[in-house]
Amino acid sequence: MKRVLSGMRPTGKLHLGHWVGALQNWVELQEKYESFFVIVDWHALTTDYENPSQIRENIVEIAADWMAAGIDPERSTVFLQSLVKQHAELHLLLSMITPLGWLLRVPTYKEQMRQLSDRDLHTYGFLGYPVLQTADIIIYKAELVPVGEDQKYHIELAREIVRRFNHLYGEVFPEPKEILTPVPKILGTDGRKMSKSYGNAIFMDDPPDVLRRKIFPMMTDTRRKRRSDPGKPEDCPVWTLHRAFTPEEKRRELYQGCTTASIGCLDCKRVLVEELTLRFAAFREKKESLMRKKEEIKEILVEGSRRAARVAEQTLEEVREVMGIGIKV
Amino acid sequence: MKRVLSGMRPTGKLHLGHWVGALQNWVELQEKYESFFVIVDWHALTTDYENPSQIRENIVEIAADWMAAGIDPERSTVFLQSLVKQHAELHLLLSMITPLGWLLRVPTYKEQMRQLSDRDLHTYGFLGYPVLQTADIIIYKAELVPVGEDQKYHIELAREIVRRFNHLYGEVFPEPKEILTPVPKILGTDGRKMSKSYGNAIFMDDPPDVLRRKIFPMMTDTRRKRRSDPGKPEDCPVWTLHRAFTPEEKRRELYQGCTTASIGCLDCKRVLVEELTLRFAAFREKKESLMRKKEEIKEILVEGSRRAARVAEQTLEEVREVMGIGIKV
Repeated sequence: MKRVLSGMRPTGKLHLGHWVGALQNWVELQEKYESFFVIVDWHALTTDYENPSQIRENIVEIAADWMAAGIDPERSTVFLQSLVKQHAELHLLLSMITPLGWLLRVPTYKEQMRQLSDRDLHTYGFLGYPVLQTADIIIYKAELVPVGEDQKYHIELAREIVRRFNHLYGEVFPEPKEILTPVPKILGTDGRKMSKSYGNAIFMDDPPDVLRRKIFPMMTDTRRKRRSDPGKPEDCPVWTLHRAFTPEEKRRELYQGCTTASIGCLDCKRVLVEELTLRFAAFREKKESLMRKKEEIKEILVEGSRRAARVAEQTLEEVREVMGIGIKV
Repeated sequence: MKRVLSGMRPTGKLHLGHWVGALQNWVELQEKYESFFVIVDWHALTTDYENPSQIRENIVEIAADWMAAGIDPERSTVFLQSLVKQHAELHLLLSMITPLGWLLRVPTYKEQMRQLSDRDLHTYGFLGYPVLQTADIIIYKAELVPVGEDQKYHIELAREIVRRFNHLYGEVFPEPKEILTPVPKILGTDGRKMSKSYGNAIFMDDPPDVLRRKIFPMMTDTRRKRRSDPGKPEDCPVWTLHRAFTPEEKRRELYQGCTTASIGCLDCKRVLVEELTLRFAAFREKKESLMRKKEEIKEILVEGSRRAARVAEQTLEEVREVMGIGIKV
């Protein structure tokens, strides 16, 4: 059984974009593969080192989101990066063989620096983020990594580092491959990409009243100024959500209604609120109950991290052996 | 009692330059301070990652050199860097707050790259070497670090990183200070700086016949072409060794003899061989006996590393606490 690894930063509770873009896929993957799902709190420091206080709080919430969504910690290894020290050791060892140029050429490197211009990202750690990510993956000899399009280059880089390692010291690591899931693009309440930092996110655990409050005032196709103007769903942010969450038959009705102006935008939004309420009802309930047992969630993470550490330590023993590090008593 | 930390890379057995430049000083320091002496095998990888096979072998030898020279593992903590994983964790955490510019401006960075032009040092790990060194020091909250002149900037950088850490998260680390020992310059058998890689080194454990073989053909003051030409000790590589190892009275005689041509160079060299033989007789004997008990040396390193790890773990608990890393169960 092949191994899959994927992770998320503990940046806050999960929104519909996370569900559509990753979590939904993970729940399916854990049926087919031996899966490792990691909360990468060290990674969060690469960009949030100046104010890490939120990180710890978010860890439990994100673990609850995962489990409520169907990630099963009995079946998959659900763990916290900073509890598996071996990641730091392998990161250090890989740093020795990783050319600076490879890191400087990562397309997201300069792009992220521009995007997050409110903070100083000219740090050693931010540059080395793909090395840490490589360590996260290959320490479990994971062969498959579900990622978004923007992470494709990171997996390519991980392969390069693996090839260099295997060439210098001997075949220890398999080359990881990305699983690129075609992800329907989901827009936030303001029509931009859904993102917590834009303040336009609909969270997986938003209750019906919050859904109404967020969705009713949502921007729609701007050409549909009056109720009697026909709309073009392809240009409507609300439609991106229908496409992801509303069953096809109902969606066809809405499309028809919008393009012929037989329904208004509010009618269409009411259906979306209903669909989301329905879709995430069980999730909300499960999450609520999980969040009442935070200590249990922490224990699950600790136990998962112990399991992960056993696998990671095995790999590191091989690594130390082929590199000739340390002493043997 | 203040803490001192110093380390050496396991690049091979120690020569007279190591003794004069560091080890002699360490033996004195351990009387006055709580001392940590570390064999930095991870550091050796920054430059020798392409061929690390020698590193493991050198570890035991260097530990034997230290102990034969008077480093007492009962009194000082003698340990191996790669056995104390906390160094890797702190290195990773410090990487997040260390500006790239600070590392690119380290004077030895470009200099070393030029000097070691036979290998590719454009790696992430080589650039980050001073971050790892900072972790090595501050993880023990060491306040004093005996270093050579060329390492001064590294300690300055460690202070900068400490200030930045304390400012961002809270006062955890004291600022380390360098102890700069005035080091008499020792030249090798070819008149260049004594260095193993130049093949001109006289090792601390060289027996009398090897001393003779190395010292008798040594270059002297080039102006003393004939026995009857008076010499100028200040321009003689052999004299640099007399200055470090020959008692003053005898040295004065030699000076007199050389500058008046009343003795020949070989006479002068014979005295040096005698002095070195005498000075390192006990060392040689002790080292020989230690090298017959390699397993014991390894156990000493493992035990020292355990002791070091306990101190390092305490510091890291503070670090994780102020940074808010991980979870508390």
